[in-house]
Formats: sequence, structure tokens, C-alpha cells
Amino acid sequence: MPRRRIRPCGLVTLLTDFGSQDAYVASMKGVILTLCPKAVLVDMCHEVPAHDVIAGALQLRSAVDHFPAGTIHVAVVDPGVGGTRRPLAFRCADRFLVGPDNGLLSLALSTPAHCVHLTNERYFRRPVSATFQGRDLFAPVAAHLACGVALSQFGPEVTDWNRLALPSPESSTATLKGQVIHIDRFGNLMTNIDQATLQQWLAATPCECVAVRVGGRTVDGLVSTYADVSRGHTLALLGSAGYLEIATREGNAAERLRAGRGAKVTIRRRHSAAGRLSP
Amino acid sequence: MPRRRIRPCGLVTLLTDFGSQDAYVASMKGVILTLCPKAVLVDMCHEVPAHDVIAGALQLRSAVDHFPAGTIHVAVVDPGVGGTRRPLAFRCADRFLVGPDNGLLSLALSTPAHCVHLTNERYFRRPVSATFQGRDLFAPVAAHLACGVALSQFGPEVTDWNRLALPSPESSTATLKGQVIHIDRFGNLMTNIDQATLQQWLAATPCECVAVRVGGRTVDGLVSTYADVSRGHTLALLGSAGYLEIATREGNAAERLRAGRGAKVTIRRRHSAAGRLSP
Amino acid sequence: MPRRRIRPCGLVTLLTDFGSQDAYVASMKGVILTLCPKAVLVDMCHEVPAHDVIAGALQLRSAVDHFPAGTIHVAVVDPGVGGTRRPLAFRCADRFLVGPDNGLLSLALSTPAHCVHLTNERYFRRPVSATFQGRDLFAPVAAHLACGVALSQFGPEVTDWNRLALPSPESSTATLKGQVIHIDRFGNLMTNIDQATLQQWLAATPCECVAVRVGGRTVDGLVSTYADVSRGHTLALLGSAGYLEIATREGNAAERLRAGRGAKVTIRRRHSAAGRLSP
Repeated sequence: MPRRRIRPCGLVTLLTDFGSQDAYVASMKGVILTLCPKAVLVDMCHEVPAHDVIAGALQLRSAVDHFPAGTIHVAVVDPGVGGTRRPLAFRCADRFLVGPDNGLLSLALSTPAHCVHLTNERYFRRPVSATFQGRDLFAPVAAHLACGVALSQFGPEVTDWNRLALPSPESSTATLKGQVIHIDRFGNLMTNIDQATLQQWLAATPCECVAVRVGGRTVDGLVSTYADVSRGHTLALLGSAGYLEIATREGNAAERLRAGRGAKVTIRRRHSAAGRLSP
Repeated sequence: MPRRRIRPCGLVTLLTDFGSQDAYVASMKGVILTLCPKAVLVDMCHEVPAHDVIAGALQLRSAVDHFPAGTIHVAVVDPGVGGTRRPLAFRCADRFLVGPDNGLLSLALSTPAHCVHLTNERYFRRPVSATFQGRDLFAPVAAHLACGVALSQFGPEVTDWNRLALPSPESSTATLKGQVIHIDRFGNLMTNIDQATLQQWLAATPCECVAVRVGGRTVDGLVSTYADVSRGHTLALLGSAGYLEIATREGNAAERLRAGRGAKVTIRRRHSAAGRLSP
Repeated sequence: MPRRRIRPCGLVTLLTDFGSQDAYVASMKGVILTLCPKAVLVDMCHEVPAHDVIAGALQLRSAVDHFPAGTIHVAVVDPGVGGTRRPLAFRCADRFLVGPDNGLLSLALSTPAHCVHLTNERYFRRPVSATFQGRDLFAPVAAHLACGVALSQFGPEVTDWNRLALPSPESSTATLKGQVIHIDRFGNLMTNIDQATLQQWLAATPCECVAVRVGGRTVDGLVSTYADVSRGHTLALLGSAGYLEIATREGNAAERLRAGRGAKVTIRRRHSAAGRLSP
């Protein structure tokens, strides 16, 4: 494996399902700042639904690209804490990722990724709690990484880490089918249909516009931005993360369409702009 | 326009309606720290109700005065994103403000304010998403400002920005009328009746005390602090932001009075302290 | 009293019941950074239930030990603001604590503690609001402390501060009884039964395992970690804060047991592992 010369920049992000009603995240921050006072901490998201590894992995994927080279991303959504799942740290692209081996980090990885199993207790806070390894294991490892300890010091290299398998969109001549994988705070429905797949499908048989079917309703698509429809209309567009999204202008598409995570999304070609979902 | 010599202090605050369940705010922070690693970030508030420009403007107004000279305040409550509304940056008093031209920044402005229309794409993250200009336009502009780029570099000066018009209190000899413009986490009702208006009205005909009518109930006023009434009593006082507030001591006035944003508030003079709202 | 030579490290934590929907916390941060630009701010927790001093004190206690020497912890859950309760600052162990004299800080104190009544208005933001002393009194005092002002400069020493009295566990030969004192975001029930008390009681008459009775149900105990039971099973263990906790693996024990704060918890010895609470 080629050694990448990436230096930690001192920035450490934190993503957890710990919520905001307890001081769990603060405890992790205290541990990091004790070991590495120069670390700069940024909250990624702490309202990942409890134990929801997929939701955490999607949030992490959505944000890591926007951080500077050398950032260390710590993620803890860890229903298997205290069990046999391994604690891991990765170096890939220009970043580091630290967290449990349950797929949480996997959507944010690129190739090649260098991974170690965190076994060197010298870098843990001891004793390691069986229920709060965010504080006792992942936070101190991140702090030591931020202070310049080489990844290889933390444990042996491994290559068999767990990957999450997101459902893939399915395309035929007539349709492109996917599903809702996340609903954001605005009620926007984020799908698993990525820009490349969509553009490839559209290029095969160019058409004036498409109809996007979700939650038993058909919505306008593809528009460029919310302002392309009237207030209260529902629309489909390529979202800021590079995936098809369904949104209601200044409204809540999830409530309006009564569509949740897992809802099927079907795109068909059409040759006129009729059939808009009225407000 | 006289050039004010204000230097950015490296502090950047963020106010949005992005909530805490997604990593949108984190993406903005990553963009800022990539472009300006020395920036210090402070969250102003991210739980502004979705698309609620007035609520965001009020939160911004309530806090900007407490930040050091040279602070850059970025605010993104932006239902018109991707449409024709202009992105703006202001320098006024000793601070900078960056955000959409929908009035969001207007309550935090003082006179004179120097404003530019953000058109210089050199300072944007490209391509600029049509739905997430917080990340692609406002965050990078704030970062470049924080790193010392002069305001005039970002685009042409404009003077016709949008101002929010908050309802003004109405005074007569007998009454001073206003309304509830915000309800805080404690259920305190913040009104549009400011200290100067109130004191002017009181000075016209001095009285022992006033009765404040809201939600069909009459509450004590003006007291100096919560401790002036018993636990569970509802009261009116001049709040920490310089506006009349109605609160319930160790309770929730909004729930108790069933009064929401927009509820009318009427102040009358009285000459005895009878008529307290019992707990 | 022996003078401890503790120097502030520049780190200031904030714990409040101000929630996240307003910019109150941001205002405190602005005040601190204006007076002490080098301060590094960490949010401890702002979702303490409104006016709930005990909940705030427990959160503070759970996290202070994880911060570096010289950290200044500011806590504001202050239903008596504006009344006669004193504002205080403490130096104890290797940290500083700043907040109202209502017991909020008391669970995080160790012996000896050096305490001053904050009376020196020179270190306040003036005028001090009668309703927001977090911004006008506690934040500026913390900032001045962080910048090196000696504790003795803020006011006279006092020793009669208010202490919270948490209920103590009660042990007999047959049982160890305690209660639920906090429920976290995962629905885990944290009790007042600390590790030392538990181990002492267990040592008196060793047994194979214990039965923990709470909310009319009996749960497994003591296990070492969540992974010791199947998914959906409820268990008792020593939590990461050193107290007995009742949890449901990948579930919500508080909902499942319909047990809230104050619920009685009774531990009995048993000599077989029968009677598990099935999922």
C-alpha cells in the first residue's frame, strides 16, 4: 500500500447519535482537548436517530468532502458497543475517519483506504467503559491522531471492514426506479438516484421532461431550483449532494406526500409539462 | 460613503433554519475552515423555523451587539434560494453581515450601512448549487471576508436592499398597543413594544402601575424581575433585549395564556395593584 | 485555606437551560469572546429542562472530570434570577465553576472548594439585566477568569453555599434500594446507586447474580455491556458515569418499562439466571 503523506490539520469533527439533551458529546470534547489542546472541534451532527447506522453514514458522506485536508472525522453510532465489533481508524483521500466497524464510516471512504484495527490501549482512556467508547476509545484516538501519532501506531492493518450496501437505482428503457433514503429538516426527500445514473438514463432517450412518481403522486421534474415552481408546488431536482431530491417549495414534501424513508420513487419520460401537482 | 476602517477579527457566526438533524451547518463550517483556517466559528441559532425570515431576523438582532468588533455574521434563512433574490454583504457599525436580500439581515443593521451585491464568482465555491447557497456562496464569501478580502471586491455597491417592516406599537392617551413577535424556549412572550416607546408613554401620565392585557387575561406590570411575583404568577417586564416581555415565573406564559405570535398586547394605566392573575 | 495554583487554560464550557431555538447562548459567547478573545468555548448541554436545577447539576457532574486542568465551567439554570440568590464562583480540584447559588454547581464540587460571592461590578456587563444574568454577569466573570483575573478579585469568600441533596441508596441485607434520577436520550435509566455502594453491598453476601426490579418488571443484572443480552432485552449494568443504569439493548428502556425520573429501583440477590425480561 502506498503511504500517503497526509498530516492532520488539527480539525476534528464529531458525528454521533447522542442527541443534545445530555453532556455525552461534551465529555468526548473534554477528552480530546485534554490530550490535544490545539485541536479545533466541529460538530457534524448529533441528532442521528438512536442506533441508526445508515442515517449516520449518509450524514457523514454528505459533509466530509467540504472539510480541509487532514481533518479527522470521528463518528459514533454504535449499537454494538462493548461487543465484538472492532474499533477502526482510516486514512483515505486526504482525511482520517475513526469509528466502529459497523459500516458507519464506509460511505465516506474512497479508494484506496488504509485501515487499522484500534488495539493499542496506550492510546485509550482507561479503564475503557463497556458502554461509552466514544469517550474512552474513539475520542482519545482522534486526539492522538490530531497530535501527530502515526496511524500505524494504533494497531494492525485490516482490509475486511464492513461496508454498508445502499440500494442501487434500477433503470430500464421506460423507467428509472429508486427510493427515499433520507428526509431532511425541511421535509425534502433525498433519494438514492445519483446524478451520473440519472444523466445516463436521460441521455439514452432525450425527452422534454420527466414525471417523478412518489407516494402515489406525480411531481414535476426535473427543475433546476425551488424558484422554478410556485410556492406550495412539489418538484424534483438534483440536490446539493448530487442526488435526486423531491421538495415542496416553502413547504414540507414528506408531510404532503406522506412519504418516508424507503418510499419508492419512479421516473418516467414525458413530452409535455402537464400534470403538475397543484398546491 | 465614508470608508470605515473595520478589520475582521476572525470570528464568524452562523444563523440558519437548517436545524440540527442534518450536517448542513457542518458543511458550511467545513467550507469556511478550508478557506480560512484561522476563523473561529460560533453558532448563533439553527432552529429558526423553516423559511421564517422574520424569526431569523429577530434572533440575529437580539445577539449581534454582543459580539466583538469585526465579527462576520452569516445568516441563511432563504426560501428564495436559487431565484432572483440577491446575495448581499454589509459592513455597518463595527460588523459585517452576509446573507440573502430578503430582509433577514435588515433588523441587525444600523446607519450608515455599506452594502454590496455578491456577484464576484471568484469568491464562490463552484459550481454553486441552486439549493444550498449557504455552503457554496455565503460561507465562502464569509471566509474570504474573514481572511481580509475587502468588501468592495465581492461586487457592486447597492442601496436598495429589502427591509423588514415590523409592526410598530400604537400609543394613545389611554393605551399602548403592540403584539407578540416571538416566543422563546421558556414560553416568554416577547413583544414589539420597546423600552423608549414604553417610557415615553409612561412619562406622559405617570401612574402607580400598569395592567397588561394579552390572551384575554390581565397580568401584572411592570415588575423588575421574575422574583417580584410568586412562583406561577404571570408578569410583564422589560426583557433583556429592551422590549416588553410577558412571562410566568418558573412557568410557561405562552401555554398559560394560550397566546402565540401575533397576539395583541394592550397596556393601560391603573392606580392600584389589584387584579393579579392568580396561579 | 491553602491557595491552589491553578491557572485557567482558556477553555470555557457552557451549560444552560436556554435550549437551541433562541440566540441566548450565542449572546453569552459573544460577551465572553469580546472580553477574552483567546477563550475556547465548548457547549456542555443547553437542553436541560427549563428551570430544572437538579437535571443541570447531574449533567455538569457527569462531564467536568473529562476536561483539562484550568477549565472554567459556566452553568446557568437559574429560576431565581433577579432575586436574592447569590452569584458564585468556585475553584476546586483543578477547575473553576461559575453560576447561581442554587445547588446547580454543587454536585460537581470536590473538597476543598474555594468560593467567592460575585459582587465586584467591575467585572459585570452593565447594566445587569434582571432576567439574563447569564449574559451580563456569569459570562463576563468567566471571561475575566479566563483572562487571568484572580478569583479573589470578584468578591468576598463565602462558605455557606447551597448544596443539592440527592436521595441516597438504602441498603439492607436483602435489598439495595435506589431510584431513577435521569433518563438519557436513549431511554437509559440512570440511578443514584453508585459503584462503591453497589460493590460493598454485593461483597457482603456474594451471589451468582442480582435481580433488578423497576417499573413493575424484573431485569437482568448485572451484565457488563449491552452485548451480553439479545437485542430488545432489558438489562442492568454499571454505566459509564459509575452508577447503576437500566437499559434496553438497541431499544428504549424508559418507554418499555414506563419508568420515569423518581421510579424506585430495588436490587435483590438471586442464585440463578432465570426470569429474564423477554423482548
